[in-house]
Amino acid sequence: MVSFVPKEMKFFDFLSLQAENLMKAAEFFKKAIKDGVLDEAEVKNIRELEHEGDALLHEITDMLNRTFITPIDREDIYSLANTLDDVLDLLNAMAGRVRLYKLDPRDKDFARFIDLIDQATAALAGAVKAMPDMKRQRRVVDYCIEVNRLENLGDAVREKAIGRLFDEEKDPVQVIKWKELYETAEGALDTCEHVAKTIEAILVKHG
Amino acid sequence: MVSFVPKEMKFFDFLSLQAENLMKAAEFFKKAIKDGVLDEAEVKNIRELEHEGDALLHEITDMLNRTFITPIDREDIYSLANTLDDVLDLLNAMAGRVRLYKLDPRDKDFARFIDLIDQATAALAGAVKAMPDMKRQRRVVDYCIEVNRLENLGDAVREKAIGRLFDEEKDPVQVIKWKELYETAEGALDTCEHVAKTIEAILVKHG
Amino acid sequence: MVSFVPKEMKFFDFLSLQAENLMKAAEFFKKAIKDGVLDEAEVKNIRELEHEGDALLHEITDMLNRTFITPIDREDIYSLANTLDDVLDLLNAMAGRVRLYKLDPRDKDFARFIDLIDQATAALAGAVKAMPDMKRQRRVVDYCIEVNRLENLGDAVREKAIGRLFDEEKDPVQVIKWKELYETAEGALDTCEHVAKTIEAILVKHG
Repeated sequence: MVSFVPKEMKFFDFLSLQAENLMKAAEFFKKAIKDGVLDEAEVKNIRELEHEGDALLHEITDMLNRTFITPIDREDIYSLANTLDDVLDLLNAMAGRVRLYKLDPRDKDFARFIDLIDQATAALAGAVKAMPDMKRQRRVVDYCIEVNRLENLGDAVREKAIGRLFDEEKDPVQVIKWKELYETAEGALDTCEHVAKTIEAILVKHG
Repeated sequence: MVSFVPKEMKFFDFLSLQAENLMKAAEFFKKAIKDGVLDEAEVKNIRELEHEGDALLHEITDMLNRTFITPIDREDIYSLANTLDDVLDLLNAMAGRVRLYKLDPRDKDFARFIDLIDQATAALAGAVKAMPDMKRQRRVVDYCIEVNRLENLGDAVREKAIGRLFDEEKDPVQVIKWKELYETAEGALDTCEHVAKTIEAILVKHG
Repeated sequence: MVSFVPKEMKFFDFLSLQAENLMKAAEFFKKAIKDGVLDEAEVKNIRELEHEGDALLHEITDMLNRTFITPIDREDIYSLANTLDDVLDLLNAMAGRVRLYKLDPRDKDFARFIDLIDQATAALAGAVKAMPDMKRQRRVVDYCIEVNRLENLGDAVREKAIGRLFDEEKDPVQVIKWKELYETAEGALDTCEHVAKTIEAILVKHG
């Protein structure tokens, strides 16, 4: 039942696939709203990437079941895989909400958020990919710092967007809808930062 | 001060009591809203079960204080007990909100949510009960899969309920109230899934 | 690269600074709203304390990088520093929201919340300060119990405040704004309780 493999390496391959899948979803989302519409097929595509992400998460969890590894490492991989999955869940939720709430995806602040998430997930994919290579640890840290920077920008976008919403939008129900969407977008960036912190915590232990 | 007991066994008895107490609260909630009213006595009863849950949580924490056990096991038990308690807190919050917000508990989607939570907490009680028995690990996993299935159903109920709310409810304040309640219900199912994940993570380590 | 220092002691000095910085922010917030206005300079002062908190958090994380310490201790310190930082983030968010949403900080329930947070952060500062002294562990536990008590009071304030808001406030947009602020305040108290739980968990392991 238990296989002794060159330990973490294999896991990082899967974590990399997961991070790339997430990045792909964010890229697609960004492109999808460029034309001013988020149609049913596009929402479905994001949902399918989210399902692929779930499948990868389960594969990693199952592999952890069958592999000998120290408890600490196990938990780190588990935590990293779960947090990456959380970001994709939030992206998927946002796509679904835009449709469900019948919102206009041409909203400038929303597009700005999707752009930041696109950049943050690309940085995370870079960080996860570089993690197993001990000589590129500085690079990993730089990617994490970049994610923090993007999360800070996200805070500023949220501030501006919500301020404008309260000042200009007269329909309270529209306020409720957009406020939730902006907050979910900021939450996605926060979760990206959380992934970056998990990566940094792993470096701390193995550094 | 330190007593050396047949370790985890005792803790699982308490975790079982905690899971059963949670299940009892969900069952009661479900029955309480059947007649279309959630009266003060019923809310109080749920609150009392929540207090019993807190007492059990403290008993487990105190026991952890006085017992020799490996750090990893300790943290797992701590985490499992806390997450079970979180579900009950959310149930209690929902009961309180229905009264505070003067909502009609006959709402179909709300009843559907309570039914899902009732099933999920029953599955968790089954899983926690079967955990110490190494021969029933497959059973534990099945219970956890069942919780994931119920959580997915909860996502669909939420989608439908919020869509309907925005389409049909004209009073923004009612929108605010029901939206919060549906989201808390979905959060309770999410937390049930989180308990299931914690259980699975414990199996991973001891499997 | 690795320095062997009298381990946790140094970290507790920094955690103490962090807890005191948090307490200072809460005290300042409380004093700031006494005159019925929260002006731009006051919001900026809270933001600056939040930046100092971030700097302290980074210093602790960096120190963890360079110091030999057992993995379990490392994670505890990491978790404690992060949760303390979360409380300050929430305080800073609240100050920003009051300005952004153009809310009147003379609101009685809001002042009550800030007062509870002020007391809770003072208790946490006391707890963190007493932690390294093995002879004062009972004191630490008492501080944690006090934080739990204040969190329970916060629940009651929230209940009353939201009930009143729904009964009396006719403008749905005002309902949205104040509801968020009350919930953030309650979240800050919850996070204080979470810090207290982390402290208790550390005592459990070292007790």
